[in-house]
Amino acid sequence: MGKNIAAFGEVMMRLQVPGYELLSQANNLHYSFSGTGVNVVSAMTNYGHQGYLVSALPANPLGDAATIYLRKLGIVDSFLLREGSYIGLYFLENGNGARQSRVTYSNRLESSFNTAKPGAFDFKSIAKQVDVVHFCGITLAMNETTRKHTREFARAVKREGGKVVFDCNYRPGLWGDDGYEKAKPYYEEMLELADIVLMNENDAMHILGMKTQATERHDQLTALIPQVASRYSVPVIAGTHRTIHSDQSHSLTAYLHKNEQFTYSKTLNFSVVERIGAGDAFTSGIIHGELQDFPEDKTVAFAATAGMLKHTTIGDTPVLSEQDILLAMDGKGGDIKR
Amino acid sequence: MGKNIAAFGEVMMRLQVPGYELLSQANNLHYSFSGTGVNVVSAMTNYGHQGYLVSALPANPLGDAATIYLRKLGIVDSFLLREGSYIGLYFLENGNGARQSRVTYSNRLESSFNTAKPGAFDFKSIAKQVDVVHFCGITLAMNETTRKHTREFARAVKREGGKVVFDCNYRPGLWGDDGYEKAKPYYEEMLELADIVLMNENDAMHILGMKTQATERHDQLTALIPQVASRYSVPVIAGTHRTIHSDQSHSLTAYLHKNEQFTYSKTLNFSVVERIGAGDAFTSGIIHGELQDFPEDKTVAFAATAGMLKHTTIGDTPVLSEQDILLAMDGKGGDIKR
Amino acid sequence: MGKNIAAFGEVMMRLQVPGYELLSQANNLHYSFSGTGVNVVSAMTNYGHQGYLVSALPANPLGDAATIYLRKLGIVDSFLLREGSYIGLYFLENGNGARQSRVTYSNRLESSFNTAKPGAFDFKSIAKQVDVVHFCGITLAMNETTRKHTREFARAVKREGGKVVFDCNYRPGLWGDDGYEKAKPYYEEMLELADIVLMNENDAMHILGMKTQATERHDQLTALIPQVASRYSVPVIAGTHRTIHSDQSHSLTAYLHKNEQFTYSKTLNFSVVERIGAGDAFTSGIIHGELQDFPEDKTVAFAATAGMLKHTTIGDTPVLSEQDILLAMDGKGGDIKR
Amino acid sequence: MGKNIAAFGEVMMRLQVPGYELLSQANNLHYSFSGTGVNVVSAMTNYGHQGYLVSALPANPLGDAATIYLRKLGIVDSFLLREGSYIGLYFLENGNGARQSRVTYSNRLESSFNTAKPGAFDFKSIAKQVDVVHFCGITLAMNETTRKHTREFARAVKREGGKVVFDCNYRPGLWGDDGYEKAKPYYEEMLELADIVLMNENDAMHILGMKTQATERHDQLTALIPQVASRYSVPVIAGTHRTIHSDQSHSLTAYLHKNEQFTYSKTLNFSVVERIGAGDAFTSGIIHGELQDFPEDKTVAFAATAGMLKHTTIGDTPVLSEQDILLAMDGKGGDIKR
Amino acid sequence: MGKNIAAFGEVMMRLQVPGYELLSQANNLHYSFSGTGVNVVSAMTNYGHQGYLVSALPANPLGDAATIYLRKLGIVDSFLLREGSYIGLYFLENGNGARQSRVTYSNRLESSFNTAKPGAFDFKSIAKQVDVVHFCGITLAMNETTRKHTREFARAVKREGGKVVFDCNYRPGLWGDDGYEKAKPYYEEMLELADIVLMNENDAMHILGMKTQATERHDQLTALIPQVASRYSVPVIAGTHRTIHSDQSHSLTAYLHKNEQFTYSKTLNFSVVERIGAGDAFTSGIIHGELQDFPEDKTVAFAATAGMLKHTTIGDTPVLSEQDILLAMDGKGGDIKR
Amino acid sequence: MGKNIAAFGEVMMRLQVPGYELLSQANNLHYSFSGTGVNVVSAMTNYGHQGYLVSALPANPLGDAATIYLRKLGIVDSFLLREGSYIGLYFLENGNGARQSRVTYSNRLESSFNTAKPGAFDFKSIAKQVDVVHFCGITLAMNETTRKHTREFARAVKREGGKVVFDCNYRPGLWGDDGYEKAKPYYEEMLELADIVLMNENDAMHILGMKTQATERHDQLTALIPQVASRYSVPVIAGTHRTIHSDQSHSLTAYLHKNEQFTYSKTLNFSVVERIGAGDAFTSGIIHGELQDFPEDKTVAFAATAGMLKHTTIGDTPVLSEQDILLAMDGKGGDIKR
Repeated sequence: MGKNIAAFGEVMMRLQVPGYELLSQANNLHYSFSGTGVNVVSAMTNYGHQGYLVSALPANPLGDAATIYLRKLGIVDSFLLREGSYIGLYFLENGNGARQSRVTYSNRLESSFNTAKPGAFDFKSIAKQVDVVHFCGITLAMNETTRKHTREFARAVKREGGKVVFDCNYRPGLWGDDGYEKAKPYYEEMLELADIVLMNENDAMHILGMKTQATERHDQLTALIPQVASRYSVPVIAGTHRTIHSDQSHSLTAYLHKNEQFTYSKTLNFSVVERIGAGDAFTSGIIHGELQDFPEDKTVAFAATAGMLKHTTIGDTPVLSEQDILLAMDGKGGDIKR
Repeated sequence: MGKNIAAFGEVMMRLQVPGYELLSQANNLHYSFSGTGVNVVSAMTNYGHQGYLVSALPANPLGDAATIYLRKLGIVDSFLLREGSYIGLYFLENGNGARQSRVTYSNRLESSFNTAKPGAFDFKSIAKQVDVVHFCGITLAMNETTRKHTREFARAVKREGGKVVFDCNYRPGLWGDDGYEKAKPYYEEMLELADIVLMNENDAMHILGMKTQATERHDQLTALIPQVASRYSVPVIAGTHRTIHSDQSHSLTAYLHKNEQFTYSKTLNFSVVERIGAGDAFTSGIIHGELQDFPEDKTVAFAATAGMLKHTTIGDTPVLSEQDILLAMDGKGGDIKR
Repeated sequence: MGKNIAAFGEVMMRLQVPGYELLSQANNLHYSFSGTGVNVVSAMTNYGHQGYLVSALPANPLGDAATIYLRKLGIVDSFLLREGSYIGLYFLENGNGARQSRVTYSNRLESSFNTAKPGAFDFKSIAKQVDVVHFCGITLAMNETTRKHTREFARAVKREGGKVVFDCNYRPGLWGDDGYEKAKPYYEEMLELADIVLMNENDAMHILGMKTQATERHDQLTALIPQVASRYSVPVIAGTHRTIHSDQSHSLTAYLHKNEQFTYSKTLNFSVVERIGAGDAFTSGIIHGELQDFPEDKTVAFAATAGMLKHTTIGDTPVLSEQDILLAMDGKGGDIKR
Repeated sequence: MGKNIAAFGEVMMRLQVPGYELLSQANNLHYSFSGTGVNVVSAMTNYGHQGYLVSALPANPLGDAATIYLRKLGIVDSFLLREGSYIGLYFLENGNGARQSRVTYSNRLESSFNTAKPGAFDFKSIAKQVDVVHFCGITLAMNETTRKHTREFARAVKREGGKVVFDCNYRPGLWGDDGYEKAKPYYEEMLELADIVLMNENDAMHILGMKTQATERHDQLTALIPQVASRYSVPVIAGTHRTIHSDQSHSLTAYLHKNEQFTYSKTLNFSVVERIGAGDAFTSGIIHGELQDFPEDKTVAFAATAGMLKHTTIGDTPVLSEQDILLAMDGKGGDIKR
Repeated sequence: MGKNIAAFGEVMMRLQVPGYELLSQANNLHYSFSGTGVNVVSAMTNYGHQGYLVSALPANPLGDAATIYLRKLGIVDSFLLREGSYIGLYFLENGNGARQSRVTYSNRLESSFNTAKPGAFDFKSIAKQVDVVHFCGITLAMNETTRKHTREFARAVKREGGKVVFDCNYRPGLWGDDGYEKAKPYYEEMLELADIVLMNENDAMHILGMKTQATERHDQLTALIPQVASRYSVPVIAGTHRTIHSDQSHSLTAYLHKNEQFTYSKTLNFSVVERIGAGDAFTSGIIHGELQDFPEDKTVAFAATAGMLKHTTIGDTPVLSEQDILLAMDGKGGDIKR
Repeated sequence: MGKNIAAFGEVMMRLQVPGYELLSQANNLHYSFSGTGVNVVSAMTNYGHQGYLVSALPANPLGDAATIYLRKLGIVDSFLLREGSYIGLYFLENGNGARQSRVTYSNRLESSFNTAKPGAFDFKSIAKQVDVVHFCGITLAMNETTRKHTREFARAVKREGGKVVFDCNYRPGLWGDDGYEKAKPYYEEMLELADIVLMNENDAMHILGMKTQATERHDQLTALIPQVASRYSVPVIAGTHRTIHSDQSHSLTAYLHKNEQFTYSKTLNFSVVERIGAGDAFTSGIIHGELQDFPEDKTVAFAATAGMLKHTTIGDTPVLSEQDILLAMDGKGGDIKR
């Protein structure tokens, strides 16, 4: 039987220019609704869990469309507020080869989620009903209230015996000048509450201000992650290293740090149809492995494969089942499946 | 030779659900860029004038797309600021029959145009370069700065000998509670500066607080418009009455009040492909007639026909030429044109 | 607070040629999933009730797509079996004017729903969890097992104190030769169990073999429906008369028979975007009115308006809210809603 | 058993802007291949005849696409030359209401058909293999060689005992100044050879220079057509009168003149999805009626209904079967056909 | 001059999700009609032969659409029955990279072709009119009647002096448990009748139960194919080995066994737009080479190149001409062709 | 501040089959307007210059659409004639892998530009208003008048002190038999007038008849280009060598010859979305570098990068800004840009 997993985060409308035209060339947009929490929780429902989103959406046709889209993604909407006026949205122009993809945001600070008043969410009651809650560094970057909501909710989860998952997901553009300094106390608070943390060596160095003399990414990782685990008492830490090759293919290598030990996935090489949301697919794999008590090597392989397969599907949100991922882990991709 | 005509107003991105699906059913959107000023000025370029827009757009891919779209509409972008962060946008779901179309706005108050600082536009210099400027009541509704910009620009135009066109275009939702009371002084100021005003009896009664014992729309119009013309010294006032029939066809009857006399168009009956922007097409017809010194009956017929034909084309912005409109005025529509 | 309403019926995949091309001209199809029960229950969720479907879908990508689509329609999938091999599907070519729409079915007799084994559904347990269940004559036409399932489920509902809704929905093509004769005993059984029946005079005359000397539809209706109500002890009977005018607009007049009295709606005239599913929208209005204890005239007006508005939206399944329908009942359609 | 029917005429590529945008607004085009002869012959294959086209297309990808499209339309390509360099093409912008549709031609004078050399077609051999050949006034308008080809082919058909159908189809833009005068001798020649002629009173007055004092279309028709029949010995003459109503619906009334008698169809009223090709659908109905020896009233009703139904389908070319037309003649349109 | 070639096989409707979405994400489908026989015969018409299909389609709009599509593919429909109720159909979701394509079938066992009664086809008469007939192992898998039809038709072809082509095309899913055992006698019968057989070492080992101690595919092939040729007296056997590389490109190496000798093509490497139908394109190349008396090396190169090029075009069915293939054999692909 | 740059050349309508279908498979086309001059000048406006086109377009809906498209591309239309009857157009079928793209032209010789009469353009007045003018060898190939126009305009530019850019762009198909011989005097004339020439060793050998014993492309280039520079006194010559790899990726190496010295770019490897227009993007980079007085290595790197990036965008015409190109030169492509 699956667990009850919730995420706390914003739902955004994604408006994507089809193919490789720019916004200034095209005249239509494909739209969907996503967000880090949405992606992780929807993926978990594909693996047999029950997923919830704790968020807010306006009581207008855009909020209706988002709510219906979340249902389509398998997410139960019982913890979703319908208040406020706006939904954050972003425009995506697909890059290729030497031209990178471009994301242009509308004013997300005014969104229903980011303007929800203190007390708007009944965190205590929600915490009683779920087993795991996913939080994300993007929510910390928004404003004082979202930071308070995050802390308050995470504490409630712990009090009720649930697990806290925290994805560092630091976005420099959202924190502004001296961002690392501003962010540090909020990140530390979440690390102390967290059971599972998604991060890599850059987060340790930049946000937490840790130091190492290593200059290679891998060496920095092995030097710093155990320190994070020990300083903030984090049972499970996981993350990936991505390499973009000159032929536009990507590679991912995942690590899992648990019980003072590192476990690594194979390095997976693959071509890319859509890159957005791959981190969230990876996160979902780690959480699922932990909830199912997979051995470490299976968890990290499952998560890395979930991340790789996300690059083969359309949209931010993972759509493949546990079985699809297990098959691909065994290398059973290949020719047509009839 | 055409005249130089500018408009002062916001550019909005319009995102329309194709066909008759709701936002919650569809997955793609057709987009374009428009606005009352955009529509009027673009129409004027179709009649042979040179059109300009005085506005602001962000220096990002959305602003680029809007600017390029304005060029496509024939509008010269030399008075366009590229600053601020956002562009206002709205979503359109097409109604039909007993189901009305729905418009959902994003947060336009944060748009580049509505957050342009005092002094951002060099109104004096612009006023020297143009013959006519179009203003709209929607801009008055935004905030104190847009109201000041409007007043300042209109005064500059008058000082430089240009003509001021003012479209009352009162939107209740934008002014909030006690809106008419709040709006009145700003409207009165613009009426005193204006050479051509677009309005009807409702504006006189509700915004200006004028009274009449007449109960029929036509009687109210003939009672009140001459009072407006005389109280605020408005040389030309024009507007339309629209009727929506039970078979979903519409009728328009236009009036023009000039030299203390009313001139009326025929009542035009027609089916509707797209209704948005019809008022702006009408406005462009009135301005064109006045700039070309058409006789009153030709001006009002041209404007009403321009309004009617707008209902047969796609998008907010009129796309037909002066010749197309003159042909339809003569009833030369009919069968295929090879 | 809404009620729990379930429907028992098949989910079909609908594959529609866009616009007015024939299948032999086009090369793409728009698809969705629907069915009489799907439509009625989804509409009820739009009015604030909790909706369930008791049905079966194959455990393959088509079944996945259907299940996800039902969730999007607001339907809880907890009573949905995932077994069998196929989903029924039909192709729709849109007619217009003098050319009628054409529906071509694939082999629905092999569908998961129609091949579900006796005992596949736990009707007793489901009946305990719902307040109302909707049944449809189409399911009676399929085979002996679906007829048994229908009877068994309806009896369970009555035993548990729930309400039975039965839509006669007789499809001559499905019953074959001597269809009325074959169908009669099954229909009579359902009428005796039903609290709300959807039907009109044709069903009384053809299926039930009732006779009247009246020759006008309205007179036949008033003669026969009270006999049905009394012979089978049906508390509420409702239905519509549709007229198709030569200008391709349609009219609907609805009736409601309750407490030995007829209540009629106004005759509604309207143009048509999509006709399929209008009967189900009407049904949903009748059920909602009964569940909310609306007075008879409000129930029949609400249902007729729901039926009319269905013709303005895309897809078999109603998508408008209770508020949308109430507004249209008041004639507040008209121009753009901003 | 069907007959063998050929047409002599140009194949054109039609490039249509979807919906109601102008060429200057849109960015994609729907394309197909048609022509008066193509349309008539393809319709005949829908009625059970064997259809051929005598024409020329370039041996390049456009010619390949056209050839394959003709096969799709049921036309046997054994009399189709593959030579020359170009295919004529035209762009279509759909009008609606008071805005008429616009057709813009590319340079069709350079097309393979219009530049085919004298002797390119083996008319004698073709004439032996077919029962009926359709010719059109548009081909006469092209150049001296197409006129010679037409005459030569028509004479060969008569020599071999086949029937000649001639559709006057006078296009003023193609003949230039003094067009009627230039055209007259060529038209007279064809009238003398023809067994079935499609025309109306305008052709008699303008091309043939006949005179009448009647001022109403119907009176002119009844005065002049018998003169045409007798002067040029034409056994069968047929045509339609079209009225475009202010609500954009159209009416058609057809006549058939045979054995010195007029037979008229009912006046059919209908709304219009696509108007192009309706004349060719009518023509096909007349030819079919004559080949099947329908009584006059059935022939003219069948042809008028075929013409009406063409307005409900997409593309220049009729796509409905004989049975579809017979059903609609009986008024069996109405609701959905399952 | 081309030969007359027929195929005996089912026509299926293919419904493909565009791009890389799943059925549960998308809302429209691209459709076409294909089948192994359709593909081979249509390819042959591209090389200048006359192509026929011996099959059955329902007399409904789906059957009409399929028939018209076959004509578009250049196939003469004179041996096509129009009877029965259904057409088999399958849904295709495109994979990419590590995610494989998925095919979901509807119930093809009920199709017109698979339910055609014994005696439905006049095989004797058809055999007199054609030079070659293509058969396929898929048809053997369907039911006892299709197996009898196959045998009967193949024998008639031999009696009339025609050539029999047999593509082994064993599909495990269709034969069920103990499939190889069940299939063997039917396959042996066809091998004995066949002039050209498409197969490789797997068919020899699994279906025919042949044994070899070789463990490499190539060695197995060289060991077993000569045995097949000799045991069943097959003049020509051909097939391919496909390798899927980790960068998602594919390689093909083709062999031809004739006169006790193997001839191999170069190993062709290429990227893939669409993989389905590549085997049929290869088959068409072998048949064409044999009918044209190409030398062995040209035949196998032509067939391999036809197979490779199929991966660059859309749809199951090959669309390139003999000349296109000959050019690519010479490596004349490269830059733009103007 | 930018310069004023004009181009003299034809505007063509491009009609592209979407995806990888052939014209004979698809039914819609994506269209745009381009041409060598259009592409170069539009690119220059992306770098901050003012762009003009000296050309002719018909005064019909196709000419309107082209004019509006040019405005969208940032091109000022004040030197555009609206006369003549036709616009040249071409159809594009995208190749991939071993299948090359195909371009099919309509009859461009009849276009407004190619039929413009002597004296139609006021070259003297235009030359006074611009700093640079771009000419192209394609225009020389059309007819005697376009050659005279080219010479006359180039001379006027020199007289007024402007710069002449000449792109050799020799198209064998347009010059016919003995094309090099015919073309040579016209090319020599332009080389003598030109300040910047785009060419490579093939042009020197084939058109100018120069000889070298070198057999490698690079050696031929270094042997011949200095001779061209010296014989015709050309200050700047530039060009590229393209390699198409077996994995379908391309490489470009660019050279710049100036002050008797060669400067080379790095060899750039990249995958290809759209290849057409890459040469024009390169040209625009060379002109921009020269107008901005970039050092030689920056100019050639900028131009090569502009050429490479063109392969990542849709349409013939470059759409990226100077900043986009500078970023890619620094290798700052990589992951998503938020």
